[in-house]
Amino acid sequence: MTPNSAILTPNDTLDYLIHDGLLLPLSPDFPEAIRGSLGIQGEKIVFIQPQGSKTLLPPARKIIDAQGLLVMPGLINTHTHGAMTLFRGLADDLPLQTWLEEFIFPAEKRFVTPETVYWGTLLACAEMIMSGTTTFADGYFYMDEAVKAVDRSGMRSLICQGVLDFPVPGVADPSRNVAVAGRFVETWKDFSPLIQTGIFCHSPYTCSPQTLQRVKSICRKQQVPFFIHGAETREEVSLIRSRYGKTPVRHLNDLDLLDEKSVIVHAVQVDSEEIDWLSRKRSAVAHCPESNMKLAAGIAPVKEMLEKGLRVGLGTDGCASNNDLDLLKEMDMAAKLEKVHYLDPTVMNDRTVLRMATTEGAKVLGLGNRVGSLEAGKQADLIFLDLAKPHLIPCYDPFSIIVYSAQGSDVHSVMIAGRMIMENRRILTFDLEEVLERVNRIAQRIVSR
Amino acid sequence: MTPNSAILTPNDTLDYLIHDGLLLPLSPDFPEAIRGSLGIQGEKIVFIQPQGSKTLLPPARKIIDAQGLLVMPGLINTHTHGAMTLFRGLADDLPLQTWLEEFIFPAEKRFVTPETVYWGTLLACAEMIMSGTTTFADGYFYMDEAVKAVDRSGMRSLICQGVLDFPVPGVADPSRNVAVAGRFVETWKDFSPLIQTGIFCHSPYTCSPQTLQRVKSICRKQQVPFFIHGAETREEVSLIRSRYGKTPVRHLNDLDLLDEKSVIVHAVQVDSEEIDWLSRKRSAVAHCPESNMKLAAGIAPVKEMLEKGLRVGLGTDGCASNNDLDLLKEMDMAAKLEKVHYLDPTVMNDRTVLRMATTEGAKVLGLGNRVGSLEAGKQADLIFLDLAKPHLIPCYDPFSIIVYSAQGSDVHSVMIAGRMIMENRRILTFDLEEVLERVNRIAQRIVSR
Repeated sequence: MTPNSAILTPNDTLDYLIHDGLLLPLSPDFPEAIRGSLGIQGEKIVFIQPQGSKTLLPPARKIIDAQGLLVMPGLINTHTHGAMTLFRGLADDLPLQTWLEEFIFPAEKRFVTPETVYWGTLLACAEMIMSGTTTFADGYFYMDEAVKAVDRSGMRSLICQGVLDFPVPGVADPSRNVAVAGRFVETWKDFSPLIQTGIFCHSPYTCSPQTLQRVKSICRKQQVPFFIHGAETREEVSLIRSRYGKTPVRHLNDLDLLDEKSVIVHAVQVDSEEIDWLSRKRSAVAHCPESNMKLAAGIAPVKEMLEKGLRVGLGTDGCASNNDLDLLKEMDMAAKLEKVHYLDPTVMNDRTVLRMATTEGAKVLGLGNRVGSLEAGKQADLIFLDLAKPHLIPCYDPFSIIVYSAQGSDVHSVMIAGRMIMENRRILTFDLEEVLERVNRIAQRIVSR
Repeated sequence: MTPNSAILTPNDTLDYLIHDGLLLPLSPDFPEAIRGSLGIQGEKIVFIQPQGSKTLLPPARKIIDAQGLLVMPGLINTHTHGAMTLFRGLADDLPLQTWLEEFIFPAEKRFVTPETVYWGTLLACAEMIMSGTTTFADGYFYMDEAVKAVDRSGMRSLICQGVLDFPVPGVADPSRNVAVAGRFVETWKDFSPLIQTGIFCHSPYTCSPQTLQRVKSICRKQQVPFFIHGAETREEVSLIRSRYGKTPVRHLNDLDLLDEKSVIVHAVQVDSEEIDWLSRKRSAVAHCPESNMKLAAGIAPVKEMLEKGLRVGLGTDGCASNNDLDLLKEMDMAAKLEKVHYLDPTVMNDRTVLRMATTEGAKVLGLGNRVGSLEAGKQADLIFLDLAKPHLIPCYDPFSIIVYSAQGSDVHSVMIAGRMIMENRRILTFDLEEVLERVNRIAQRIVSR
């Protein structure tokens, strides 16, 4: 038995024994793929045993024959707006301000309700589960409903109530936005071990310094993460510079908003000195390459961020600007975009990118000790990929196959906290057909607006 | 009945009637999606009839109920090296020259044989069919075997024998490469209405001016297309400039190689004047964004090419530099890459990109009068997408859903020249399991080299 097996006492019966699969633990003990078995008890992994070990495997209530499957940590989406699945493809290929002001904001004003957030979030969960994501960070409105949807799905999440200095869905009086967000955190903080809470400030241009500081102070008191879209576009940089005489990250730094529980989403328009600051303050970055490309925001200098030790996770952003929640595709884009940006094919190799979508993503969300790798003592959040597909053959290197060739539908099964959430492409925790039907009905209301 | 229905005489019985689907004909008559029916006789489409038309539909031997499916032209891959599926993920994230000289060229030398080209090409066909491609242009070696594999698959193709001034697999004496290519064209030219032939010169730096001119002269005589990798990397530009005192496209132009049957693959490093020349000579471009990104070649100025009226198709390039043959993913990348390159989200909209992968791709391959759109008189090359997936809902706009959200596995069924090639994800023309097994066996030989 490996040193990792210490947690299991001799007479315990496993809940699951995953047998004879190709394991990609991404752990310090096993950074590369191994053939072996994995034991699960309750919500935790209790051991990983490479093939050829002489130790007998303990008995298990269920044995999963993983032959032909690759077993790896579930993917971690560090930034999305779940319920925006409702607006997928509603408006594309438009200038950012036209898109926001003529389509997204008016649609949100009219159609974002507790009911639509619930079903839109559940659709997002379905899409994420079916493409291998087990944990995600969400930032939107009516987040009580998002909590209910995510709880039903069985996914792990960090749910953040959104804050702007404008009326938002569910909060007509903007002066109450911060208080509503604070109450959201208090209400749901201890609701479920799978659900963390936090607050998401929309941006430095839609939140005043006072709002930002009030929110960060609540986050510090409650010890929850603080998210903010920052340094996304050149327009934002001009705006913040004209208002405050400095660039967005300098502005956030001067307001004392940067610490290890702050996550800057996008971080496209950042210079070397700003990356130094983010690094010194141990803040993290949610990198959203597809959204940055589609909205023409620019290309984030991820290579430099990594060289300076920043935690960088991958995010899909919302479905209105991507237009999907598929982290397998996001990894491929992330790798290729930085290569062509730096004109260097060695940048952002498959190992770096896969860690960004797993172990590093977990650290960005403050969940590094619980998820992101397969290790004894960690949560049993794992996905099974079916490798017997024409586009995944040959498989000389699982990292390459996952990052450059796999697609969402190659995810065969998904387990979160020791519970099977999807088995052979069928979601077990909720009725997918009902969700598709409900969202289609909401979409009909939106098109006939 | 629409004007398009004239081809059917009153008493004919259809071979297929596709009924009640969402049709995306991409034709002059129906540039946008319509609900309706489509009739097929033999290998051709004989009519498209929008829903609500009073005309009775003719009888048909088989009726396909396309409810919930989107029916559109099959995708067209204007550049790949089919058999390089064998080297998918063999070496990634390396500098171009290391990748080529230490991995790809030695692997090709040892493992590219008639047998491996046959199975590698058939694997490529499987992957392409399963992600919605119905026509592709291939350029590699031992192309007699590629013809046999493609013929077995039922795909439409343009198969080009590769030429370099070095020994290539199957031709030990480089002085014979051009003659072998010429004989290949003659041998297979009239073999099958689904298979066109051509010659693919590897590049201006691996083929001398004499070789290029000899090949082009054969192509002109045989009236077949001439393909060449050109203006791909900055290194190539330096090399050609140092050898001939000019840039690659100027070099090709001065050798009189540019005409309407010449296709420049990559065309990344081209300036405005070169685009003007390509346009004036009515040459075409095979745009391979994923390969250009992964090998860090650069970003092709596609916006300017389109503004100047160039025919631009999409290509996946080979699996060693992508690493898949999925045109749905390629479309998404193509759209997003140009947006972030030009810092303009309106560039390369969903309609432009989808046409590039269908109607424009057909024109690039000289097949514009046969395929690329659904029209009476054209070949019945069409694909059915299953829209009842979480990541494709809601569907406000089919163009957006296809380009930005769909994945290969959403392709439900595929018809080529009126023949069902894949039905409900099952390939009908060959035994997929056998292909996967054969390629896995070849791959074992490659790893144990």
